[in-house]
Order: sequence, then C-alpha cells, then structure tokens
Amino acid sequence: MSPSAPAAVSDRQRHVEDDLLHTVLASFRNTADPRLKELMESLVRHLHGFIRETRLTEDEWQRAVDFLTAAGHITTDHRQEFVLLSDVLGASMQTININHDATAGGTEATVVGPFFVEGSPEIPRGGDMAGGASGEPCWVEGTVTDTDGNPVPGARLEVWEADDDGFYDVQYEEGQLAGRAHLFTDEQGAYTFWGLTPTPYPIPHDGPVGELLAKTGRSPLRASHLHFMATAPGLRTLITHIFVEGDELLSSDAVFGVKESLVKKFERFTAGTPAPDGRELSGGSWSRVRFDIVLQPSQG
Amino acid sequence: MSPSAPAAVSDRQRHVEDDLLHTVLASFRNTADPRLKELMESLVRHLHGFIRETRLTEDEWQRAVDFLTAAGHITTDHRQEFVLLSDVLGASMQTININHDATAGGTEATVVGPFFVEGSPEIPRGGDMAGGASGEPCWVEGTVTDTDGNPVPGARLEVWEADDDGFYDVQYEEGQLAGRAHLFTDEQGAYTFWGLTPTPYPIPHDGPVGELLAKTGRSPLRASHLHFMATAPGLRTLITHIFVEGDELLSSDAVFGVKESLVKKFERFTAGTPAPDGRELSGGSWSRVRFDIVLQPSQG
Repeated sequence: MSPSAPAAVSDRQRHVEDDLLHTVLASFRNTADPRLKELMESLVRHLHGFIRETRLTEDEWQRAVDFLTAAGHITTDHRQEFVLLSDVLGASMQTININHDATAGGTEATVVGPFFVEGSPEIPRGGDMAGGASGEPCWVEGTVTDTDGNPVPGARLEVWEADDDGFYDVQYEEGQLAGRAHLFTDEQGAYTFWGLTPTPYPIPHDGPVGELLAKTGRSPLRASHLHFMATAPGLRTLITHIFVEGDELLSSDAVFGVKESLVKKFERFTAGTPAPDGRELSGGSWSRVRFDIVLQPSQG
Repeated sequence: MSPSAPAAVSDRQRHVEDDLLHTVLASFRNTADPRLKELMESLVRHLHGFIRETRLTEDEWQRAVDFLTAAGHITTDHRQEFVLLSDVLGASMQTININHDATAGGTEATVVGPFFVEGSPEIPRGGDMAGGASGEPCWVEGTVTDTDGNPVPGARLEVWEADDDGFYDVQYEEGQLAGRAHLFTDEQGAYTFWGLTPTPYPIPHDGPVGELLAKTGRSPLRASHLHFMATAPGLRTLITHIFVEGDELLSSDAVFGVKESLVKKFERFTAGTPAPDGRELSGGSWSRVRFDIVLQPSQG
C-alpha cells in the first residue's frame, strides 16, 4: 500500500485519518455475506486512499457529487452514463480481462457496450443484417469451434453495429430495428452474413462523461468495430468485437476495447467486383473479413 | 502499493491487466489542468486496484452500475443519495478531516448533512429556533472566539435540527420552516437561544443506500445532534454539530460524524424548574447545554 497520506501530513493528523478509516472498516463487521464484506472493505480502503492521497478538497468532493448526480439524471432505459463512465475509465475492460483469463484460450472478449438489445431479427446464413442501415456492404465469414478445435453446429451469433453515420438503430427516435440480427452456424460450425464495413463513431458525449473527456483532452471516438455475441450449449458465452486493421483509432479507442487478436483484415473490393454469393451490389464497393471464433467450456 | 492482483494470477494475466492500467493512465496525458490530471490518475489507480484485488465478477460490476443508477434516479433537489453514500462510506468525514487539520486549533468540523437550507428565519438572542417543531426545549448558550481567545461580535450562527419524530422541516410535504434559524453573537461574542434536546433519527433509508446498510448489518441511525454553521469576516466558516453525552449511538453513528470534542453535557431539568430566562415552559422538562466555538483564521 502506498502511504495513504503524503509525508507532509503530521503524525497526529495521520492518526485521525487512520482512526476514521478503521472505524469505517469495522462498521462492516456484521455483514452476513462474506463476499459483500470483502467488496465493501476493499472499496472503502481504495476510496479513502484516493481521498487521502490527493488531499481532496471540499469543492472537489462537491463536484464529484454533482458529476454523479448529473450522470444519474441523464441515465434512462436507452442511455447508460454509468456504463460509459466505467468504459472511459477502463473499468469495464479491466473487469472483462479479469473474468476472461488471458491464458484460458478461446477468442478474447471485449466490452459489450450500451447498444445491445434483445429481439434482433433472425437471418439465414448469407443473409443481410443491415436491415436498411446505411454503409458499405461487408461479407463476413468464419467458423465457431471449441478449444479442442471441434466445430460447434447451431451456435447462435448475435451481431450488431453502427451505420456509417455513426449511429445504432436504438439511437434514432423512429425505433427501427437495423444493423442487428442473429443467425446460427451450420453443421460444420460455419457462418456467413452480409454486414457493413465498420466506421468510427463517438460514444454519446453530450453528458457529464463527454465533458470529462473534453476536459482531459481525450477523444470520444471508438475504433471502428462490429459486435458479436456467440452462445452455444455447454460453452461459455463470448461477447466481443472485431476491429479493422489499419484504423488509426486502434491505439486511442475511447473505451480501451481493442485487443490485437481482434484486429482483422477487411479486404476492400472496388465497385463491379463480383460478390462471393453473386449478390447484386448496385455497383458499389464492398469488403470481406474472416472471423473464426473459439469458445471456451462453460464455467461452474 | 499492495499487489494489484492476487498471487494466484499468472504472470501473463498480470501483464495484460498492468498493460490496460497503463494505457488508461496514459490516456490522461493531455489533460490541461494538472490537478484534474492528478485526480484522474489517482482515481484510475484505485478503481483498477479495487477491481483487480477483489477479482470483481461481471455480475458484481452490473450490480454496481444498477446501484449507481438507482441512486441517481432517487436523487432530487430534496434527496441526495450520493451524499448519503459518501456519508455511510466515511468519505464525507474523511474529506472534512483532510480539510480541517486536527493540529490547526479551533472547534472541530463534522459533516454538513443533507438538510441545511438557505433562508432560515432570523431570531434574536434568546429566541426560539424550534418554530413549532416538536421536542423538549433546550437552552443553548456559548461564545464565539478566534484562536487567540478574542471574542467575535456579530458572528452569524445558523442552527438546524430534527424534531423529536426524527424529521427535519424539509422532509415534510407541507413545506414549513421549523427547527432552523440564524442569530448573531453580541458585543462579547456571546449567544443564547432556545432549541430542542436532540434525539436520534435514521438517515433516509428507503433507497439503495438504506438497502446497502441493511445488507451489511448496519443501523441507519445517527447519534443525536444539533447542527451549527458559524461565519464571521476574516475567519474560516465552521460547519459542525454538537452531540449528546451518554447517547448510546455515539459509537455507531451511521455517517461517522462524532468527534469527542463535540460531545457535550446536556443538563436535564424536570418540569417546574425555572428556565434561565424565566420562559414559561408549560410545565414540561427542559435541558441546557454550553457550546463555546473557536474559529480559525480564514485561509488564502
């Protein structure tokens, strides 16, 4: 533990602060659930450590209260400012790291983000998940296997992404369903679908989290990505994205979601190049990416 | 620094977690305000330290998001759940400790609490601040001096307290003004007023903070107290309470606000004992307390 109070603090003052910390820790002694007790004690140690190390002023404390209040008031069923806050502080990604051990094998996980919703339409293999969302068509193909390399037939894939204006369907007021779908792998664990070549977009930054990013000289932009959730019986659900090789935002993703293993080559084809399934692409350009997914055994 | 990840964590996993922490810290490198940079870096270190030490699960992360969301949604102009949260975690009191150095002399500060409001009525010295709030009358007297012992004439004292049902005026829907007032010290820095003998009451515990207290086996009760705010030109504003000697809640105050120097003897008098100012007390019991206030020089 780093010293909780700077060296300049007098012994008597340090004693007063230590005393309070120990009194607060002791107040949790009757917590029935041992895990909750552990969490509260660690939380209190770190919260007091933060206050003491920084010698937090009363004005700063008030601004923290005001920030949390504003975050609470902007949060609705469709806008989760506390998730955004966790995301931009790397807390979401660190939680994912901890719960998806780097040594366990399988495709790496990343943040779920605030835009997954239940009830996406089912599409057949080779179908189009864009549902009218604007953007360059992208042919996505791959397999789902387990960590022994066995194909996983019938795995369910949920896929969702922003349109090329940077918005998910749920961010439009019209309540359309677009840029999201689910499909299933075939007998060989293979899948294909048409999506959109991912493009960068900002996280919602008209609230307190956006203000924090502005004050700290950080961009609200996320690296371009396409979301996946893969589920299959007996295997651990995987929530992840794939990112676009060469995207200049890979090193400054606002939510720290990029993992090297998830950066994929999106091959680009000029207008007129025939599509893999012979689809008529109205004379526009398109792209193609491969993403082979490996699912870990389910836990517990 | 205690190890950020338990010993059982593999080197590779530890490396992944360290890498993320350093990436998040580096994201604040362009913060223009050096103090904000310092605060964000310390916050990130402690937040990640908490997540890594406890190996926070994704369910627990979700519950934390839900807790903050509920706290935000119950917070209004009249109900501040984030202040309550800070209070019950001892964060408010630790911030006060840090900003009111124990070695600086002067009367000790404690939490302001959520029930101070501007616009209290002025009363003359010897007047009654109860304004119809129910409870046993209490004669309060004392002086205001500076740290050299000089009396402070014309110091403004704001005083506020709960009635003997445990509620402040602002907690009633009727919008009355009671149990709060302000007055000024005389030429000798002396003051007297009639208040109410303080009684214990719970902090608002019908929200997420109340649920947290229940789950951790903690009482929402505050030790009985009477609030003071003392202001005078050239002197540092003091926000504090006095507590009642012998109150069994002194050692388990829900917000850790009790300081030994603020515990005062409330002398009790049976019905019929004449009041100091000859006031007619309708045949009921009353109490008497002395609180001499010492104000530090103002800072900066």
